[in-house]
Amino acid sequence: MTSVNSITEQANDYSATMSRVEVGELATGQALTAPLFSFKGSDDAAPSVYIQANVHGAEVQGNAVIHQLMTLLQDYTVLGDIHCVPLANPLGINQKSGEFTLGRFDPITGVNWNREYYDQSLDIASWFTEHQHFADKDLFSAFRQTLVNNCQQRLANPWGISTGHRLAVTLQHMAHGADIVLDLHTGPKSAKHLYCPEYDAAAAAFFSIPLSLIIPNEFGGAMDEAVFCPWWQLTEYAALKGRIFDVPVAAFTLELASQERIDMADAKNDALGILAYLSHRGVIKEHVAPASMKRWGCYLKDYKKFHAPKAGLVEYCAAVGEPLAAGEPLVTLLRLDQYGNDNAVTSVSLPIDCVPVLHFASASVHQGTELYKVMTKVFEIP
Amino acid sequence: MTSVNSITEQANDYSATMSRVEVGELATGQALTAPLFSFKGSDDAAPSVYIQANVHGAEVQGNAVIHQLMTLLQDYTVLGDIHCVPLANPLGINQKSGEFTLGRFDPITGVNWNREYYDQSLDIASWFTEHQHFADKDLFSAFRQTLVNNCQQRLANPWGISTGHRLAVTLQHMAHGADIVLDLHTGPKSAKHLYCPEYDAAAAAFFSIPLSLIIPNEFGGAMDEAVFCPWWQLTEYAALKGRIFDVPVAAFTLELASQERIDMADAKNDALGILAYLSHRGVIKEHVAPASMKRWGCYLKDYKKFHAPKAGLVEYCAAVGEPLAAGEPLVTLLRLDQYGNDNAVTSVSLPIDCVPVLHFASASVHQGTELYKVMTKVFEIP
Amino acid sequence: MTSVNSITEQANDYSATMSRVEVGELATGQALTAPLFSFKGSDDAAPSVYIQANVHGAEVQGNAVIHQLMTLLQDYTVLGDIHCVPLANPLGINQKSGEFTLGRFDPITGVNWNREYYDQSLDIASWFTEHQHFADKDLFSAFRQTLVNNCQQRLANPWGISTGHRLAVTLQHMAHGADIVLDLHTGPKSAKHLYCPEYDAAAAAFFSIPLSLIIPNEFGGAMDEAVFCPWWQLTEYAALKGRIFDVPVAAFTLELASQERIDMADAKNDALGILAYLSHRGVIKEHVAPASMKRWGCYLKDYKKFHAPKAGLVEYCAAVGEPLAAGEPLVTLLRLDQYGNDNAVTSVSLPIDCVPVLHFASASVHQGTELYKVMTKVFEIP
Amino acid sequence: MTSVNSITEQANDYSATMSRVEVGELATGQALTAPLFSFKGSDDAAPSVYIQANVHGAEVQGNAVIHQLMTLLQDYTVLGDIHCVPLANPLGINQKSGEFTLGRFDPITGVNWNREYYDQSLDIASWFTEHQHFADKDLFSAFRQTLVNNCQQRLANPWGISTGHRLAVTLQHMAHGADIVLDLHTGPKSAKHLYCPEYDAAAAAFFSIPLSLIIPNEFGGAMDEAVFCPWWQLTEYAALKGRIFDVPVAAFTLELASQERIDMADAKNDALGILAYLSHRGVIKEHVAPASMKRWGCYLKDYKKFHAPKAGLVEYCAAVGEPLAAGEPLVTLLRLDQYGNDNAVTSVSLPIDCVPVLHFASASVHQGTELYKVMTKVFEIP
Repeated sequence: MTSVNSITEQANDYSATMSRVEVGELATGQALTAPLFSFKGSDDAAPSVYIQANVHGAEVQGNAVIHQLMTLLQDYTVLGDIHCVPLANPLGINQKSGEFTLGRFDPITGVNWNREYYDQSLDIASWFTEHQHFADKDLFSAFRQTLVNNCQQRLANPWGISTGHRLAVTLQHMAHGADIVLDLHTGPKSAKHLYCPEYDAAAAAFFSIPLSLIIPNEFGGAMDEAVFCPWWQLTEYAALKGRIFDVPVAAFTLELASQERIDMADAKNDALGILAYLSHRGVIKEHVAPASMKRWGCYLKDYKKFHAPKAGLVEYCAAVGEPLAAGEPLVTLLRLDQYGNDNAVTSVSLPIDCVPVLHFASASVHQGTELYKVMTKVFEIP
Repeated sequence: MTSVNSITEQANDYSATMSRVEVGELATGQALTAPLFSFKGSDDAAPSVYIQANVHGAEVQGNAVIHQLMTLLQDYTVLGDIHCVPLANPLGINQKSGEFTLGRFDPITGVNWNREYYDQSLDIASWFTEHQHFADKDLFSAFRQTLVNNCQQRLANPWGISTGHRLAVTLQHMAHGADIVLDLHTGPKSAKHLYCPEYDAAAAAFFSIPLSLIIPNEFGGAMDEAVFCPWWQLTEYAALKGRIFDVPVAAFTLELASQERIDMADAKNDALGILAYLSHRGVIKEHVAPASMKRWGCYLKDYKKFHAPKAGLVEYCAAVGEPLAAGEPLVTLLRLDQYGNDNAVTSVSLPIDCVPVLHFASASVHQGTELYKVMTKVFEIP
Repeated sequence: MTSVNSITEQANDYSATMSRVEVGELATGQALTAPLFSFKGSDDAAPSVYIQANVHGAEVQGNAVIHQLMTLLQDYTVLGDIHCVPLANPLGINQKSGEFTLGRFDPITGVNWNREYYDQSLDIASWFTEHQHFADKDLFSAFRQTLVNNCQQRLANPWGISTGHRLAVTLQHMAHGADIVLDLHTGPKSAKHLYCPEYDAAAAAFFSIPLSLIIPNEFGGAMDEAVFCPWWQLTEYAALKGRIFDVPVAAFTLELASQERIDMADAKNDALGILAYLSHRGVIKEHVAPASMKRWGCYLKDYKKFHAPKAGLVEYCAAVGEPLAAGEPLVTLLRLDQYGNDNAVTSVSLPIDCVPVLHFASASVHQGTELYKVMTKVFEIP
Repeated sequence: MTSVNSITEQANDYSATMSRVEVGELATGQALTAPLFSFKGSDDAAPSVYIQANVHGAEVQGNAVIHQLMTLLQDYTVLGDIHCVPLANPLGINQKSGEFTLGRFDPITGVNWNREYYDQSLDIASWFTEHQHFADKDLFSAFRQTLVNNCQQRLANPWGISTGHRLAVTLQHMAHGADIVLDLHTGPKSAKHLYCPEYDAAAAAFFSIPLSLIIPNEFGGAMDEAVFCPWWQLTEYAALKGRIFDVPVAAFTLELASQERIDMADAKNDALGILAYLSHRGVIKEHVAPASMKRWGCYLKDYKKFHAPKAGLVEYCAAVGEPLAAGEPLVTLLRLDQYGNDNAVTSVSLPIDCVPVLHFASASVHQGTELYKVMTKVFEIP
């Protein structure tokens, strides 16, 4: 993995070495940096891993998961290189507004930090035509180099690039160097769930996460998509031309329950789930079995947002992660200004069965606020 | 009670009539108004009541309590006038920042909405000298009129007054008209607790609130203080001059658990606690017994803030409302940038026994953030 | 024009009638409304007009322009209907943060208020095939009705729609009813400039605006595009099929200098520019000549953003609206933390001639902040 | 001067050495630091100086003034030690909200960064009684040590102190070490003005500032007051006891025009003004004459705030720094929602002559917004 402006700062007694990645510069001149912990694997043939956390400022639990994972790894044999970037978005993490972290978007532009990754929009046909004479290993290596080079060129744009894009492309540049990419997020008030590309749905059985969203090959600006979309396109184009291989990279977004929450014990559960996946992929030598739990899936097209039909105070009635039958109470809307008539207390339900995955964090909402996101047409993942 | 710019809007089938109180005007020209529900008591001699909720924008549960109280009151005989102002600070309630309500202070000036009440700074000695020939009832009536008049003069200041002061004095003006004033708040992540003036400590036994802070006669800008301080000063000065009477008004701040939370069932519990107090004071005819629970007190001077000794991610270990022994874990501070040395995970405890009352809402904090407020030297209230 | 939830509120002595358009609902239950002023034209054949201002909360000058335009119109013969919606985004206008209006994006989601218009993504081929037997007038009428109906369906979405989308589609719904649409904005610190679709470049000669951006037929989420894109597509598709007509609607975004600024005299200048265009289009009977000034154009692809190459304090050296030769100072970057070395004071220039159009509003910037937008390859508009 | 957690970082070819002062720690663990530039004076008997800038995040011009002053000083003989802390509040400077710096108050608590200095509330009578046998020089030295020690104890509070208080007391601790303290601020949209303690009014004749506010001996939380109040009290108490000396310290707040503005040429003017004062005080050897200008004063009690009597859009008519006769237009308030009646456009004036000093930065205001601050009863300073 090529590192970007990183300066090795300290070695320690553990198997990881720490450096710092420079992701920008604050108005006062202070460098914006994120810590980078690197484990050197003992087997060059083993897949390499890139894990980041806290790109959204309030979504801190992934840092605790990285902490627990790094601590666990001391008792395992690390075969593939592993790079961890906790606290990946220092500007977002440090941006407070009242008693909360306003870390979902750039406070200047409003752009979601997780929609700033670089859409490389490669001309896959030309690229493949030019490189198809390469054997798979060299083909993949050349493609990876193309992705990395494009990021570097982007960062060197003579007209500059935006603050959020610099952060994203700096991180993406590192992620393109790995075979496995995990982006650790949380929801607002949320059950654990996984974003999993359709070609890699079987991977959902390893993480300690009961709910999975199966996503298509479309770039919406997020890290996982930025990583797998070009490779997926390459794989599909090659197949069209009669050359068959699996998508050579894996990339997932893990939503590890709610924002503004650190739970060290629960972080260990999720670290063990990641370890089970890494074990399955041969990144560590030892076998780690996935947690035994029912796992449920839903296609992204069946993942629905419910917006507040009117304004008011909200009692969130439906528990996240639990099935909710059609017609059962989702929220109660309280309107004190309507006290004395039928609109004062309204119970709202949905017309179809679903599993509420997350709900809004505040208990008073304008009309149109996204109240819940729910999975519909849920199926069991074997 | 004199009303301020209020316009009767609708009558309904319930015993309350609704009007709207004008508390300001938004940049677009739209009037800022709060609903005012008024119950006309059947006995002029019974004490009158003023209840408000949601002066801090994120502290919504008091609205649900007012809703439940008004609903309960339909089954009781109301002797004293009762005025309820839920959603008292529309500007604060509607001010969102990310997924939370930035409702603790004026977003323009930073001034805490609950520190904008008017310090009348009366010359009690002169006033008493001038009015001491009055019988108690007339004395109190004249004093009340002085307080109300001063608020009206303040609102009419020819140089204008600030947005927050206008809101506060408009509400205060209504509160001065009542004998009993309840200001419904919440903490960030908080156990229920009551602010109770020392002269009225016995009242703590009626509300459904296990923890009480006993406060002295000092004006810090809050509603309860704005109401009781002048009367308390009058009472003490009169006593000095040999005339003895009880402080003629009661004013309390109720902190009803956590912000950004609506819980209709719990709201009914608190409504019943308020009803028990109103019953005790003769505002309703029927007897309502207070909930049976242990109640604990702490003097305000023993209520301590604990600020983050260093920055980091926070696991809040101590449960609010539960006794915590000296040396037991209060928080765990996680510092990923220190991974690999002793500063990565720090357990923080306090050197004395306490009852944590509330903690900060976010899980990542700058150095100096107020992490917990705890009661020390706690005693049982009989 | 079909109105949406609007309630006629007052008539007045002027030629305009006022109603209010409901665009949402605040958490407190208060309706979010914008004023709508309507002039009834005397000639049904004359084009109808829709003008809105202040969709971005800090961009207030358009309201003053509407005020001056409505006042001027009293002395003219209004042939076509004119609808004006000043203060179009009450939530954005009322959202303060410190001493400024945080009105560029939804404070909850970060989404730019001017990127929430509805992309109808019509199947133009099918629609045209189905309706091509209509004469032009009926064809246009049917197409308009399709656009309006789609907006209504969108607003009635059973899963709800977001706060910003509701605002945008409600406004868009009104705009689709008009032949001429003007959306009044400002830049941060900005010279006056016009966004003008390529098919309508000649219109730039009428407004009192020296700089014009000539934009292609691509929908980026803004009002002007939402209005003209479907019609432009229809026109181009019909031409392909051998049926030739001009794009039947005109839509422009006027950027009327800087945000957070009201200048009544300058507003009159811009109102006269609009009047000149309306006169040219036959909306008013009288002839109003455009202001005599040089007018310059630039294609959108040549409109460049310059991002801060490093962080620091910024002296904006280049005046907006004035040509800047290659190599002339654009900004001076001051870095006190670098005092004593060459990086303390840096003069930044561009390698090509340009006309700076706008610059950032703050004088201290993070790396990557958009410092200037500049026109390159500028040409004179005849 | 005792420094606090400062680490010398670099020497340079200039006469100043640079170190960094640690003022806190961000959630990510990053230290909050401000640069400290120190000039070693050649004469121990000469007064020492402490200058800081940018405690309010948007008030950046003072940094440019420090830059120009340090550059100028290279051509002068520095007799007294001079310490400069530009960019003094990194958290406030880096806190953006939309296109502006939300730097006036702590974004978590709302507390004004310039009201967090430590009120030492010394028992002056006891202290003087204990130390009165000292000669002046020793008396002053002991008093200074008391002030510094109290700050250190405050910073070491075992329950922690707030983020803003830590910043303020760290800065104050350095300021107490100096004989002359200058705190560089700006207004929102403002003329230059000086806050000058009554005992030191003659000093106003040296700075390049035409307007001065003469302030009494009352602590309101600002840096200048934190510095001079204890010494002023000591001086007055000593005088009461028959011992006469001048207040041994000087402390001023300079308001250097508007926020969010860097003007290098104007910064040089203000640097020359400061140099003229330092020359007068013997901090530099050479004579620097003050700029020739009329200077005007006003007692703080005659400095008046004017709050918006109603909401609306605002055209600021009165220029700051220029006399405004009673009845002349101060602002025009535009209310589009009132178009068609007399309230649509309102001209507001004041009933007395004044000099407007500053006005609000936004052009749309809620009712109660502080529109202007004006000096009344202005007199010429000789």
